Amino acid sequence: MENTNGHAEEKVSELDGAAPDSTDSALYFCTYAYLFHQKDMLEDHKRTGAYYQAVMQNRRQFEGKVVLDVGTGSGILAIFAAKAGARKVYAVEATSMAKFARTLVDHHGLGGVVEVIQGTIETVSLPEKVDVIISEWMGYFLLRESMLDSVLVARNRFLKPGGAMYPSHARLYLAPIRSNNAHQRLAEFQNALEGWGEFSREMRQFYGVDMSCLDDRYKREQKEYYLETSAWADVHPSQMLGPPATLKEYDLLTITLEELAQPLREKFRMDVLDGGPVESLVGYFDVQFRGSPENPTDFQVLLSTAPDPTGATHWGQQTFSLHPAIDCAPGDAVEGTITVVRKKENHRLMEVCVEHKVSGTSLVAQASPDRVSHYHIE
Amino acid sequence: MENTNGHAEEKVSELDGAAPDSTDSALYFCTYAYLFHQKDMLEDHKRTGAYYQAVMQNRRQFEGKVVLDVGTGSGILAIFAAKAGARKVYAVEATSMAKFARTLVDHHGLGGVVEVIQGTIETVSLPEKVDVIISEWMGYFLLRESMLDSVLVARNRFLKPGGAMYPSHARLYLAPIRSNNAHQRLAEFQNALEGWGEFSREMRQFYGVDMSCLDDRYKREQKEYYLETSAWADVHPSQMLGPPATLKEYDLLTITLEELAQPLREKFRMDVLDGGPVESLVGYFDVQFRGSPENPTDFQVLLSTAPDPTGATHWGQQTFSLHPAIDCAPGDAVEGTITVVRKKENHRLMEVCVEHKVSGTSLVAQASPDRVSHYHIE
Repeated sequence: MENTNGHAEEKVSELDGAAPDSTDSALYFCTYAYLFHQKDMLEDHKRTGAYYQAVMQNRRQFEGKVVLDVGTGSGILAIFAAKAGARKVYAVEATSMAKFARTLVDHHGLGGVVEVIQGTIETVSLPEKVDVIISEWMGYFLLRESMLDSVLVARNRFLKPGGAMYPSHARLYLAPIRSNNAHQRLAEFQNALEGWGEFSREMRQFYGVDMSCLDDRYKREQKEYYLETSAWADVHPSQMLGPPATLKEYDLLTITLEELAQPLREKFRMDVLDGGPVESLVGYFDVQFRGSPENPTDFQVLLSTAPDPTGATHWGQQTFSLHPAIDCAPGDAVEGTITVVRKKENHRLMEVCVEHKVSGTSLVAQASPDRVSHYHIE
Repeated sequence: MENTNGHAEEKVSELDGAAPDSTDSALYFCTYAYLFHQKDMLEDHKRTGAYYQAVMQNRRQFEGKVVLDVGTGSGILAIFAAKAGARKVYAVEATSMAKFARTLVDHHGLGGVVEVIQGTIETVSLPEKVDVIISEWMGYFLLRESMLDSVLVARNRFLKPGGAMYPSHARLYLAPIRSNNAHQRLAEFQNALEGWGEFSREMRQFYGVDMSCLDDRYKREQKEYYLETSAWADVHPSQMLGPPATLKEYDLLTITLEELAQPLREKFRMDVLDGGPVESLVGYFDVQFRGSPENPTDFQVLLSTAPDPTGATHWGQQTFSLHPAIDCAPGDAVEGTITVVRKKENHRLMEVCVEHKVSGTSLVAQASPDRVSHYHIE
């Protein structure tokens, strides 16, 4: 046995008969137990800097307050909160990274303020309610990882009335872009099929075994991998063919776990000012730090993962390649409905369905068919 | 959150509090549910061809017999057995690949002979005992994956007295080699440490956070990854500085599950005919198809993963880099004891400890220290 190629190795959920919960949670948490990965996130200074600004420029919200950091990792946000004058910070971390968070906290003489607790937010108990919940929970396309669930559990269990969420709001965007990636993926897909053809010829020649009955299945497997899986990308703003559609805005104070567990299903309209071909759609998010209505921030901070000429955050953007590209004229729009659902085998991964058509007065718009594109966010 | 870098993503077992069994089994099985990976193994013709020869050139062992294929995957070995005249073949597969095995079997009109059963060998029941158990269970360094356990369970549950195992024997080898990989790894390790230094300076400068208290931990984490983890390699025979030591020979008819569960602890002596420096040790295996004493094969087949000028099997070899390299003179030997234990967090992964010293009459041998090198097989 032994697989020398890793391209499906995250898809543990595909196993029939696995215990999905323990499996995807294990898979999910494990990487966060490495300093290597903590470093990877910490040195994303757009990310870490935004949290630093949100805390340090709103000290009034932290001075003398009780703070909860959900998924503290290295402990960095808890340390920011303590430096901003928090009376007490509970820093909850599920992985063994907790002990290094403790080391870092103690090294800064904050052991009296920051209490690192190893456990999941669903199971830990705190001796008091908190004024502020801070967490960096965002995944690819905002929703991947489904960590927001745990943040809402924390809110429901531990946040005082009038308390503030850091961040307080999140928005999800979709925009039409030019992208070579779509071409590359198609070429890779075609190479994969040629590889299978060569393989089949060998199997027949060497062993008299005819693999052709599995051609379609292989094609489907590879198509899903190359054409129907979103990709991490650092998109340049000049690739954008029009402004983004805002798919959804989340108010972290008010959204319920039930709403979050429902499929996200939203209509969208994207004006394609530059005209097509639209080769991919790009999905990204931002989060805002506004505090709460009772305790608004003095200084609002925005952490955006939008295409940026200075380069992407570690989240990059997620691109959804279109095969074929969408043909449309300047001023036409791509309209439709996007559905984002959690994978049943692994609730931290997502399935995306985009129903779309071109609307407008141009001839191509008039002739455009209704299309449905399916994607996996792995 | 989101980790953009995958280098520890297989180390799920590192998660504190994961359910190791369901987790590592899920992780283990998942990749085998993809045709992509089946293809990867099938097109290793040294592998598939050896099994084909072992079956087809020993038809006498299969004609009219009942065969069990443990972990049939695509069903290929079951099909070989059926083509060789087996009366009945039970093909057991834990993953959803079972349905494609069924498709392939039916496509060859062998549905009446080959019965594909989806399940684990520990849980399935068969209506009869079998004359032959065939399985491709070998992992990196032979033992990784610990799939041999399942083959022995199959033997204990289902093999008739006098029945044969295909393969029947396996041998594990260790040899001294020249290797640039050891230098590359060391350079990568040093780069990683420099990266951490730069990161630490930024963290202090941007946020007033001093990461230095985690320097040692990061160094240990990276050292384990770069210097203490064995690597897949396609070693050329000319890199070998002497003949291999045979660490262990397994007779699959007689070894017990209890013996297999014990740590492998063996003395070894490797003559370094060409002299040092010995920059790495290379580990590899072969398996033999000899049938059983009562039913010996007419034609013995050897499947070797030894360094080969025509290129490696998909298993390649596992290299264990030595830091520093072992200095020794022509005619000296490297002697010692190797211990291979299963990881407690994931029994399919291994930890290797090599206690070694140079023996011989040369001055370097006389001056050589006792050394202990630790490795992970991930």
